[in-house]
Amino acid sequence: MHQLYSMEIHNFSAGPCILPPEVMQEASQAVLDFNGMGLSLIEISHRSKEFVAVMEEARSLVQSLLGLPERFDVLFLQGGASLGFLTAAYNFLPEGGSAAYVDTGTWANKAIKEAKHAGTAHVIGSSKATNYDRIPALNSVPSGSAYLHYTSNNTIFGTQFSGVPSADVPLIADMSSDIFSRKFNPEAFHMIYAGAQKNMGPAGTVMYAFDRDAVGKTGRSIPSYLDLAVHASKDSMFNTPPVFPIYVSMLTMRWMHALGGVEAMEARNQRKSNLIYQEIDRNALFEGHATMDSRSNMNATFRLKNDALGTAFDALWKEAGINGLKGHRSVGGYRASMYNALSESSVQVLVDVMKELERSH
Amino acid sequence: MHQLYSMEIHNFSAGPCILPPEVMQEASQAVLDFNGMGLSLIEISHRSKEFVAVMEEARSLVQSLLGLPERFDVLFLQGGASLGFLTAAYNFLPEGGSAAYVDTGTWANKAIKEAKHAGTAHVIGSSKATNYDRIPALNSVPSGSAYLHYTSNNTIFGTQFSGVPSADVPLIADMSSDIFSRKFNPEAFHMIYAGAQKNMGPAGTVMYAFDRDAVGKTGRSIPSYLDLAVHASKDSMFNTPPVFPIYVSMLTMRWMHALGGVEAMEARNQRKSNLIYQEIDRNALFEGHATMDSRSNMNATFRLKNDALGTAFDALWKEAGINGLKGHRSVGGYRASMYNALSESSVQVLVDVMKELERSH
Repeated sequence: MHQLYSMEIHNFSAGPCILPPEVMQEASQAVLDFNGMGLSLIEISHRSKEFVAVMEEARSLVQSLLGLPERFDVLFLQGGASLGFLTAAYNFLPEGGSAAYVDTGTWANKAIKEAKHAGTAHVIGSSKATNYDRIPALNSVPSGSAYLHYTSNNTIFGTQFSGVPSADVPLIADMSSDIFSRKFNPEAFHMIYAGAQKNMGPAGTVMYAFDRDAVGKTGRSIPSYLDLAVHASKDSMFNTPPVFPIYVSMLTMRWMHALGGVEAMEARNQRKSNLIYQEIDRNALFEGHATMDSRSNMNATFRLKNDALGTAFDALWKEAGINGLKGHRSVGGYRASMYNALSESSVQVLVDVMKELERSH
Repeated sequence: MHQLYSMEIHNFSAGPCILPPEVMQEASQAVLDFNGMGLSLIEISHRSKEFVAVMEEARSLVQSLLGLPERFDVLFLQGGASLGFLTAAYNFLPEGGSAAYVDTGTWANKAIKEAKHAGTAHVIGSSKATNYDRIPALNSVPSGSAYLHYTSNNTIFGTQFSGVPSADVPLIADMSSDIFSRKFNPEAFHMIYAGAQKNMGPAGTVMYAFDRDAVGKTGRSIPSYLDLAVHASKDSMFNTPPVFPIYVSMLTMRWMHALGGVEAMEARNQRKSNLIYQEIDRNALFEGHATMDSRSNMNATFRLKNDALGTAFDALWKEAGINGLKGHRSVGGYRASMYNALSESSVQVLVDVMKELERSH
């Protein structure tokens, strides 16, 4: 294992995942001494002016990176998208009402399950029959639906909506695994939410961006922690926020902003995904899982056509310093997660390994 | 401000608060390179064997530090005690049932408010009439109550239960601000929960220790994230856990364990609180807020009898490197929070400053 110290590690983990090296450096320093205060970031009051500035900058960076209309409030809360599934329904699904959902796999299913605690969830499209290898065609949204909910990217199956779906009702999207990876128009949304641990920061916080005029209309008495209006009225400080995850998310958003924002991330992500998908399609030893038109720019899922080559391939990529390439158990094969912080050269290393396998077999 | 660099800072913050310096060092290093993996703690999979080991050690340290009976499961979740108030009621208050609550101030009130989303909360004691300056006498628990809930320590008013209250029903306690500070017998409990950001670790995780045989009996359909049985069935990995806050909590518990566990913490906390309360009682310039029999070993609340001395006192303690001494707005005056990681010498510095004020005025 000592060899690893001197070589670069190419971290293709599906999440928690790679973050920019300069963010790691600054985060590590802040744990010792934050802003020259002589105190650690994690031992100061969340109501200190120093941390309040962090929270405000984080919220403001979301606004500017996503180009949100003024009607949106931004919060950094806890519980991950898993609690977000319930929060979405509690805040936007009226008592006795219904909403439309798209079933693109694991996370979408969990969102549907939690929505049933608040009302009726109509599934208007599902790719379950083909093991979620594509974004399904959508039926029309049933009249009376409060919103259309979708999961913009599926990390497990490597599928991604090619754009914002069109619907006659407001949209709610779980963008946990592709937020800040590409531009989109936020106008049609009631809410966007995303767990931090892919493109935003470390595990432990979830970002909500929602239309403040659209909440408080369900007729439901919402427990305090699940009530977005409660959190917004306290500037995302209703209770002690997860200080470190929010700080590191802020640093990561600063990094994106300095590199040119979401537009620059999108261009780089496009180059990375072109590299890997071209190789999957060219190399006769491999085949992709997702259908062409549903491929994700964040998670490329693929497999060996001949399982017997698995041992040789695994040895090659591990030797090259690649980490986290094993596919999820529900798909098998391999998954190359290429979040914003992953460099093009890391993807090139993987492509080279795939070529090397072809040469040697 | 440059002077601060070369002097020790005495961090009396109420929370997030001081953690052991060696924990900060190790946490800072792990953000750069965790366990010599060549990867940061915050960029590895939460399902990697390295992080699973952290989670298991954290859960096991809670078991051993608190001396929990085998029937207890331990979880590290998100949402703070604020979501815990709801989680407690959802998991232990049967549909249409009732439970008894003690009102010792802000946090107790919030617990009562959230419980009402699940059933009836009977308040069997309150010190509201005297601005929560004491732990109230308790009426008997109404028959049919599912449990008795109390907040073991109130950070704002500086009051603390002197021990575990006796009741004919199981107990549930929010121990956010005094967990691991003193020994207690866990036999009478259905559940103990605590936000990490005082004696356990940084903000961003909440510990639940609960009787696995007592959950699942409310007749209520509980949303997944609020269902303790769901989390327990996944070994506290139902969804991506807050990796960094759990890791640092584990390091802090290791530190407590190495120093002799809760018994050693209690002895040290007793010495620290003796120091400060003796000075509050001796020094004619000061008076305490909490009544003698309800004083907290974690948060000493006090004020100047003569407000005019405030400017002089504030200048003295700031000059001595003391941080975070201002009282909460609902009490005013001062608050010395003396969590486990605060050294006796820091308390001595504060006492010396109080004596210095007396000498100079």
